[in-house]
Amino acid sequence: MKKIYSVEELQRIINTEINIRSEELKNDNPLNLYSPINYSLKIGGKRLRPALLLLSYNLFSDKIENALPSAVAIEVFHNFTLLHDDIMDKAEVRRNQPTVHVQYDENSAILSGDAMAFLSYKYLLEKKSEGLANVIELFSKTAIEVCEGQQYDMDFENRLDVTESEYMGMIRLKTAVLLACSLKTGALLANAGIEIANQLYEFGINIGLAFQLQDDLLDSFGNQKTFGKKIGGDILSNKKTYLLIKALETSSAAEKSELLDWIEKEDFIAEDKVAAILNIYNQLNIEELTQFKIDYYFQKSTSILQNLPVKSNNIIPLAKLSNQLLKRNY
Amino acid sequence: MKKIYSVEELQRIINTEINIRSEELKNDNPLNLYSPINYSLKIGGKRLRPALLLLSYNLFSDKIENALPSAVAIEVFHNFTLLHDDIMDKAEVRRNQPTVHVQYDENSAILSGDAMAFLSYKYLLEKKSEGLANVIELFSKTAIEVCEGQQYDMDFENRLDVTESEYMGMIRLKTAVLLACSLKTGALLANAGIEIANQLYEFGINIGLAFQLQDDLLDSFGNQKTFGKKIGGDILSNKKTYLLIKALETSSAAEKSELLDWIEKEDFIAEDKVAAILNIYNQLNIEELTQFKIDYYFQKSTSILQNLPVKSNNIIPLAKLSNQLLKRNY
Repeated sequence: MKKIYSVEELQRIINTEINIRSEELKNDNPLNLYSPINYSLKIGGKRLRPALLLLSYNLFSDKIENALPSAVAIEVFHNFTLLHDDIMDKAEVRRNQPTVHVQYDENSAILSGDAMAFLSYKYLLEKKSEGLANVIELFSKTAIEVCEGQQYDMDFENRLDVTESEYMGMIRLKTAVLLACSLKTGALLANAGIEIANQLYEFGINIGLAFQLQDDLLDSFGNQKTFGKKIGGDILSNKKTYLLIKALETSSAAEKSELLDWIEKEDFIAEDKVAAILNIYNQLNIEELTQFKIDYYFQKSTSILQNLPVKSNNIIPLAKLSNQLLKRNY
Repeated sequence: MKKIYSVEELQRIINTEINIRSEELKNDNPLNLYSPINYSLKIGGKRLRPALLLLSYNLFSDKIENALPSAVAIEVFHNFTLLHDDIMDKAEVRRNQPTVHVQYDENSAILSGDAMAFLSYKYLLEKKSEGLANVIELFSKTAIEVCEGQQYDMDFENRLDVTESEYMGMIRLKTAVLLACSLKTGALLANAGIEIANQLYEFGINIGLAFQLQDDLLDSFGNQKTFGKKIGGDILSNKKTYLLIKALETSSAAEKSELLDWIEKEDFIAEDKVAAILNIYNQLNIEELTQFKIDYYFQKSTSILQNLPVKSNNIIPLAKLSNQLLKRNY
């Protein structure tokens, strides 16, 4: 009988494998190319994407070792996007550590990032399998979409008329497709057949949308202790989140003009701005509207998962991880 | 009987195809992602790498259309490296046009460059063939090597003790492997067999090394009219070229100290510096030593080409292109 791994077991396996790989890279030449890669992989993170890949693979096979290089590939790709996004967004800290362009320099973050993009293909190609051509094609398509998502996100910074549907399209590209790609890759590597692989892809899209909306929600309405970041960061930086877009869309003329005043204001006390905007959000029931939307996508994802033609017992770890993702207390 | 295309015919075919592709991309969304890609592809260039790919393919097959997407892929990849290298090197002009990070901005050059890297995989994957898995593997390995070469090149900027062998290793990675990869890809796509594909790879390495050394030579000893760039640019920027490395290696104590003085000097008249360093180069016969080395690699490449198990008539276009590359008057 097939062994079903728990989320924790898979996370341990992934962490061990990523540590081995990044130690291998650390001493490769030129050191100035490989040392930032090692640094970036060692900073850690939830390793969500490789976990999804292996959980999906494990629905059909327990030969986890065959999917492990691809799981590493997806994590290396994800970290490549962080290196470049952090330059573009001028982010100086990630997971409480200096970002790569701060710890090293911008050229290092560009070039080591590039090398990581190609390393991810190298890892994907490590184990030959029947589904490999489809995996490479899906991965390349996804990578282009992630770039498109980042571009839309940057474009939105300069706009105040972003619609809800534009926003959902952006987070689909920037966040959801890579989760979906991880899940579909697991299925393809296990030769699960294209139909079920596509269902897992749809599951990933829905869980990804719910996950990103919740990230938006927690940034304004989270519990500082469990959220990990300072509450109100998105508000202070005028980030076009679902909350702000929905508020701009549903506000009265007076509320909208107050929102726009705060967005344009350059001198203010941080707490005042956060409090004023949260106050408008509360008048407009933004928290509840966002929670409805999260629940909608989460329920859609659950229903796809339950309808997969696999033993219901085997779905438990994947269901557990997606619950963990969406049930952070706040 | 198989049609053998001339270099000019293939270049026309490539230019047409690249124009079609970049027009297609131009109107894709988000515009801010795709417009810089279109700009970069339209600036032009010699299209050397796709020409090598098609010439190699045509040694074994005249179904050029099957290799065309891969030829575009290699050119898109090459242009991706230019976008990112130009940021890292702070280069403001390329082919007499503003570079992408100047024409748009740095974020555009980073992100559109990333998208081009993945687009090149998309094009490679467009036509399914037996040799495709090997092509993707070779391409990914080559892409990592090109990043390594760029890193070594940047590392060398801060060093005065770069050896000849380190320099040759750097230009192998930064320039030669992509020419070699183009040639080998052509052979693999035409199912020419791995041995002959590897011979074409070696041909590419040697022609690539000769080509880069000649570029170094022309920058100091070229004829301004035929070279296209201003003579002495490398000298003024203290670039660690083969010429400078060889001069530092073979100079007397007095000559070496004069070289180092000029390298460290911050205030000088450009013509004086160029004249003084050319004078030392002349004392040390650097032009002749470099020319010997170019001839060595060019002859090695010619001998590999002549020993290929293909009809000698069919080799003519490839031999002609490599002669054109290495016989620029100066």
